[in-house]
Amino acid sequence: MNNFAEWLKQPIKAVDKTHEQKALARQQQLTKPPGSLGQLENLAVKIASLQASEIPDLTHVHITVYAADHGVMAEGVSAFPQSVTAAMVRNFANGGAAISVLAQELMAKLDVINVGTVEALEEILGVLDKRIDAGTANFCQSSAMTEQQCQQALLIGRDNVFSDIENTQLYIAGEMGIGNTTAATALASVLLACDPTDLVGPGTGLDQQGVQHKLNVIRRALEQHTTQLDKDALTVLQTLGGFEIAAMAGAYLTCAKQGIPVLIDGFISTVAALIAEKIQASCKDWFIYSHQSAEPGHQVVLGALNAEPLLKLDMRLGEGSGAAVAVPLLRQACLLHNGMATFEQANISKGDK
Amino acid sequence: MNNFAEWLKQPIKAVDKTHEQKALARQQQLTKPPGSLGQLENLAVKIASLQASEIPDLTHVHITVYAADHGVMAEGVSAFPQSVTAAMVRNFANGGAAISVLAQELMAKLDVINVGTVEALEEILGVLDKRIDAGTANFCQSSAMTEQQCQQALLIGRDNVFSDIENTQLYIAGEMGIGNTTAATALASVLLACDPTDLVGPGTGLDQQGVQHKLNVIRRALEQHTTQLDKDALTVLQTLGGFEIAAMAGAYLTCAKQGIPVLIDGFISTVAALIAEKIQASCKDWFIYSHQSAEPGHQVVLGALNAEPLLKLDMRLGEGSGAAVAVPLLRQACLLHNGMATFEQANISKGDK
Repeated sequence: MNNFAEWLKQPIKAVDKTHEQKALARQQQLTKPPGSLGQLENLAVKIASLQASEIPDLTHVHITVYAADHGVMAEGVSAFPQSVTAAMVRNFANGGAAISVLAQELMAKLDVINVGTVEALEEILGVLDKRIDAGTANFCQSSAMTEQQCQQALLIGRDNVFSDIENTQLYIAGEMGIGNTTAATALASVLLACDPTDLVGPGTGLDQQGVQHKLNVIRRALEQHTTQLDKDALTVLQTLGGFEIAAMAGAYLTCAKQGIPVLIDGFISTVAALIAEKIQASCKDWFIYSHQSAEPGHQVVLGALNAEPLLKLDMRLGEGSGAAVAVPLLRQACLLHNGMATFEQANISKGDK
Repeated sequence: MNNFAEWLKQPIKAVDKTHEQKALARQQQLTKPPGSLGQLENLAVKIASLQASEIPDLTHVHITVYAADHGVMAEGVSAFPQSVTAAMVRNFANGGAAISVLAQELMAKLDVINVGTVEALEEILGVLDKRIDAGTANFCQSSAMTEQQCQQALLIGRDNVFSDIENTQLYIAGEMGIGNTTAATALASVLLACDPTDLVGPGTGLDQQGVQHKLNVIRRALEQHTTQLDKDALTVLQTLGGFEIAAMAGAYLTCAKQGIPVLIDGFISTVAALIAEKIQASCKDWFIYSHQSAEPGHQVVLGALNAEPLLKLDMRLGEGSGAAVAVPLLRQACLLHNGMATFEQANISKGDK
């Protein structure tokens, strides 16, 4: 698959350090004690440098929710039945889901992509049908994806980024997939070389017994695939991942190659970012981490990535909802950077320090 | 001053528990795992109950910045000269300050009130001149305010809330006053009966030596006024407070008496809320805490109030800026509450738990 190999080897875009310096200098001139806007200052500087602009702007946000089912659901790893994935796809398109409400408020472009629900869906207005297969295979029995499927999923993410690239100032990937915290936990355990006990959590709402069962399922999968899991990140992704997780990683890598800032959502999204970083480390320059989820593994993965999320609101919904909730902070950071007066303009003393 | 005494004895409005229960029930029906929107769920429930509404709405936000100077500046307690207070008042009105930019973005009503700059100001479009005096007195020498001045300041806050009460769905008080972290630290030390060492910090940017000097100044003031500081919160406010801090406390109490939700800003704002709670404890039901500032004393005061702020972005600007930055979170919480589909509407299984 030449197409894939060519895309993969494209380098990550280098970040513009000149604009970073300009933005830092401007922050020192604005009418406030230096540093007093805290992380909003860092955000403005980061976005200015990523956009190579003196007037950073996040008017145009592209949010895409990738939905897929997981074969590991045969092991009973979620509080919700698998049919919820498809039902939520309809809900996204109908405007009833959290991300639908948030995207509308943000005046963001919202794409919903079916990358692999277990049942084929009827034609749904507002849903792109890119269904790869009837969910992944149960990774307790075989590899979750074939190599070709995994590449296909990554390229669905790539193609989505390109579909509106001229208008996109910020990209958010969200996900829906009953069972996908199991896949994400397994992936992160391998990629961070840590014990799944340190990562496993209740997902959408398992009780303690359910979490223990989920842990056992993950342990079995890790034992089953020891040889495969010693290989590169792409092979790990193929073995334990989900179609939606691979698509997100493909979208993140594409944004970083093309120079589009990415706002990362919660646990699943951060695991997709981890995969992207394992594939091409410097893509992390393009990532901004929106929030720390209530899912316990999230904190561990964020720590491993040296990521400092903006919000900690105990959210654990996915769909890109945590990232969407953080968008106004980023926009406010830009507006303050662009719109505040300088000490000189306001004729104010900068103080004696 | 009958006017003042009458206002003071008006009771705090009781919160509507029926709407709290209705809102809690609705949150359980929305298409998401229960609890998965974290603090956004709590916010929606709180605002629904405060507004006694099934469709909580924060379209109309009233932000008021109270500006005043502090006599204790004679002791050299700030990194900035006192003239900055007046210069920033002009900057607020001209749209160049952080709060000006944020208020415009939020489409909030922004009032700027001069409650006591050291110099009288020219007439400024967009600034209400309610100047009580040429700053407070130096509380290292005498009481910061007379009893009448303190009451006058509280009533300026009251009157501001009433000035647009029919349109106000959320009230934010911000402040500007070079030297006011010294006043706020002294107030909180007395009201929380803790050592000022546990609270004192750099304010707008003091170095370590400056912070030590500020601490010594506060200690001197506390020793000077031991008799006064054993009395009620109003007397403590009069002795150590600032005009802007008293005005904020007056506004907060009025909101709680009239049933208007208040979004509290940073350290100074939280100390004003502490004063309000010491005057009428149940006013706390109407307060939402927006952020934890980088000023070290803020965490202590928040802890004493059992307040859990939404954001922690290392902001320390004042002006109401931290509260303004949190407004989109509150609005998103309301929009999600009102706009998401229920499981029944979306025909989705609630899962096996």
